[in-house]
Amino acid sequence: MTEALESRKTKATDWFRSLRDQICATFEQIETELPSGLPHADLPATTFERKAWQRPDESDSQGGGGVMSVMRNGRVFEKVGVNISEVHGTFSEQFRTEIPGAKESDGKFWAGGISLVAHMRSPKVPAIHMNTRMIVTSKNWFGGGTDLNPMVEIPQDTADFHAALKATCDAHSCANYPRYKEWCDEYFYIKHRNQARGVGGIFFDYLDSGDWDGDFAFVQDVGKCFLDIYPALVRRHLGEPWTDADRAWQLEKRGLYAEFNLVYDRGTRFGLMTGGNPDAVLMSLPPLATWP
Amino acid sequence: MTEALESRKTKATDWFRSLRDQICATFEQIETELPSGLPHADLPATTFERKAWQRPDESDSQGGGGVMSVMRNGRVFEKVGVNISEVHGTFSEQFRTEIPGAKESDGKFWAGGISLVAHMRSPKVPAIHMNTRMIVTSKNWFGGGTDLNPMVEIPQDTADFHAALKATCDAHSCANYPRYKEWCDEYFYIKHRNQARGVGGIFFDYLDSGDWDGDFAFVQDVGKCFLDIYPALVRRHLGEPWTDADRAWQLEKRGLYAEFNLVYDRGTRFGLMTGGNPDAVLMSLPPLATWP
Repeated sequence: MTEALESRKTKATDWFRSLRDQICATFEQIETELPSGLPHADLPATTFERKAWQRPDESDSQGGGGVMSVMRNGRVFEKVGVNISEVHGTFSEQFRTEIPGAKESDGKFWAGGISLVAHMRSPKVPAIHMNTRMIVTSKNWFGGGTDLNPMVEIPQDTADFHAALKATCDAHSCANYPRYKEWCDEYFYIKHRNQARGVGGIFFDYLDSGDWDGDFAFVQDVGKCFLDIYPALVRRHLGEPWTDADRAWQLEKRGLYAEFNLVYDRGTRFGLMTGGNPDAVLMSLPPLATWP
Repeated sequence: MTEALESRKTKATDWFRSLRDQICATFEQIETELPSGLPHADLPATTFERKAWQRPDESDSQGGGGVMSVMRNGRVFEKVGVNISEVHGTFSEQFRTEIPGAKESDGKFWAGGISLVAHMRSPKVPAIHMNTRMIVTSKNWFGGGTDLNPMVEIPQDTADFHAALKATCDAHSCANYPRYKEWCDEYFYIKHRNQARGVGGIFFDYLDSGDWDGDFAFVQDVGKCFLDIYPALVRRHLGEPWTDADRAWQLEKRGLYAEFNLVYDRGTRFGLMTGGNPDAVLMSLPPLATWP
């Protein structure tokens, strides 16, 4: 079983790395596709910069690290971070009570994953978040999700995004689209503003159907679905002009996005409270935001 | 005693209102003093707008309200919020265990106060926060503080700010400057960045020396001290030119300021978690901020 588990960790991290490469290549391609005459079309097309990071103590409680790929100040992408990580260690006494199987593993855990947030130049192009991960304690499971953040909702985009995710879930017996959609709506809700962060998507956690290969195939398809639908939505709106008022509203929506991530997002708060690399943990924050 | 307490509440709220009026008048005066030739000198001098707000249920657990005075898009002040409030109600079962005297009052409380945050146009002029408040449960006490947030520390400003606060504390036997300075440094620390938010000031809470009049005189003097030293610092740097690089750094420092307020600030998180008016609670957030 240990050997099988090691092989699964390797398969998962290989996939996360491969997905990262495909996403980065696709986004760099999109950077070259901005029609002339649009704002920022005179900027050079930008590429990702990669930077490896390590957790403080390889041997012990906070081992492992990751690679952050960032594209900044692009013509299409104002700021995108794609982080892959493979970390291991020991949860604190307090935290292990909150994580399935962590008491039984004496707090020992392993986690591998990919996470991505894209903030776009154009207020007409939606921002997005996507994340998938594999966690191992005495149990092991997958989690993840993706949610779309348009500045002004475009019903066709919302419908197409949800339809793509529904088709992905429906193709896998381990996945439950209605539950994952509802979970996403619940999770990405800015309670103090009494409003949703975006137009939803899917969110899932603790996925362990008993068929690891089937679960992993679903997680891979979530990544492939993202790689299919999000670039399509970007390309759909890439060439649209926008006004200063559109931009002002985009910056205000980004303020709400920052509020959600700093006040509520479990990954962000966990990362900050446990001494994670703040630049990696906070890569999700918008490049520019307003609270007018 | 009840009558005396009512009289004290009235004295405190009258003072907070009067301080608000003096601060607003001073800031509006400063708006007219920007020398020509500087960025934004062609904008009209701006004034405060006042807006009253009410908590949801006057009769019961969430009564009272306040008045938010905001100056936006000024020539000197990019965004300043000055809020006075007088609220009363009943703390939740859970929260009352954290507040002195709240168990004994069956959760009933009253609070009056003034709070202010100023974000400035010029990166050469420091931002500031100031707050004083009176709280009543079965006990009653004062709290408050002020901390200075320059974009790049100017040692003379820091020295003058701390000297003014020290003189204010030293004039009152109830106040303890070294303790309040240390408390401020501890409180306004961005742990995940391992850096201070600004250059400090004072922070105090649970001030009840047994001499209410003496304590109140100190709280009034903290307001007067603010009204003396902060406008002096603003006027000292008002006429200095700045570069795009100065402005970029200011916006980055404001990102850190937003991080502190959303992740750590007790007042902000308490306000958000207990259904406070988000526009009033989040008035402290910067008008424009970056996470590059």
